[in-house]
Amino acid sequence: MKKDTGLILALDVTDRDSALSIVEDTVSCLDAVKVGYPLILSTGLSIIDQLRDISHVPVIADLKVADIPNTNHLILQQAYRAGASGVIVHAFTGQDSLMACTKEARKWKRDVFAVTQMSHPGAEDFLVDAAEDMAKMAVNCQATGVVAPATRPKMVRMIRQIIGDLIIISPGVGAQGGSAADTIQAGADYVIIGRSIYQSHEPGAAAKQIVDEISSAL
Amino acid sequence: MKKDTGLILALDVTDRDSALSIVEDTVSCLDAVKVGYPLILSTGLSIIDQLRDISHVPVIADLKVADIPNTNHLILQQAYRAGASGVIVHAFTGQDSLMACTKEARKWKRDVFAVTQMSHPGAEDFLVDAAEDMAKMAVNCQATGVVAPATRPKMVRMIRQIIGDLIIISPGVGAQGGSAADTIQAGADYVIIGRSIYQSHEPGAAAKQIVDEISSAL
Repeated sequence: MKKDTGLILALDVTDRDSALSIVEDTVSCLDAVKVGYPLILSTGLSIIDQLRDISHVPVIADLKVADIPNTNHLILQQAYRAGASGVIVHAFTGQDSLMACTKEARKWKRDVFAVTQMSHPGAEDFLVDAAEDMAKMAVNCQATGVVAPATRPKMVRMIRQIIGDLIIISPGVGAQGGSAADTIQAGADYVIIGRSIYQSHEPGAAAKQIVDEISSAL
Repeated sequence: MKKDTGLILALDVTDRDSALSIVEDTVSCLDAVKVGYPLILSTGLSIIDQLRDISHVPVIADLKVADIPNTNHLILQQAYRAGASGVIVHAFTGQDSLMACTKEARKWKRDVFAVTQMSHPGAEDFLVDAAEDMAKMAVNCQATGVVAPATRPKMVRMIRQIIGDLIIISPGVGAQGGSAADTIQAGADYVIIGRSIYQSHEPGAAAKQIVDEISSAL
């Protein structure tokens, strides 16, 4: 992905028909679509290519990859082969595991985003204290960008200072309580939004409203 | 799985034919088979049922689940539905995320193992310092057991003291340097072994040798 500002749809549904229908309704507002294991396990990796075909935007595989280096490499290889433009991976498994991911990304000329922090309450247990070091590690390992939580704009600001011009993608806007405008103003490039869009009666209108909010924040 | 001592095969190959052939060669020595995303993504979740059918031992899905609570719940639901006897999940994402996994496991009356530590060098970066707290969390969340590294027998011993009679499964024996006998003596219940078996010219004989080593340690 190029460094810009916009909206990534978190397509956290588990069936193919819903996934395709939501993307069709919202595609004019989207810069990328993010899919995770709940959808991939139920449909197979082929859903990535299918979503790319109907949307013509990058599809990011949010696999929260968190294994030893060789397993990470094998997982990313399969995601890129299936057409993913980028993969979301964890940094807490350490530098060698993250490096295995960024190396694979360079080989395929694709993106890899390292999680520096998460948006749920449990992130306070172990992840919060490691956020700064994980952001530095993402820079050292030459990740495309990082994932930082919209629910914690101060952390987005802190991470922006560490990572320079790497891309920040931020989940947690909407149902989880974060604001798109605040997140962009704190230094995020793309906000990642799921439920506020796909649980809406009018997903297209909900997505348009967020795009307008992002524009007003610039 | 019941609390006992034995061998879990880490089936870290990426094609169905190899996977089935290795299990057929080694099945008389195995207490369980562990499969990860590299194999599951290439074959689909159906590999779990297929392996169970030919082996008649439990199949553990090593998914290193590391997401927010709702996503964790959805991933475990799919793994259990596909026939997994247990799922390996991370504790690093915090108590609420782990609790979502153990709750799902109880609902299906299946196993869930929390990673308290990993066997690769990168585990030193963030995970080592959190091992004790993650082991306590596994107890609080009523996990079936924990994953602790055979490459660090002292840590296995420390974790055993924290978790009481929960099951410990230990990867890192063989190619990564750990010894099956030392790991069992340190308090592990099952050792998890991959390359030393499936890369052997005679996987059945290699598995038998490890089973003998385990018996000699008791």
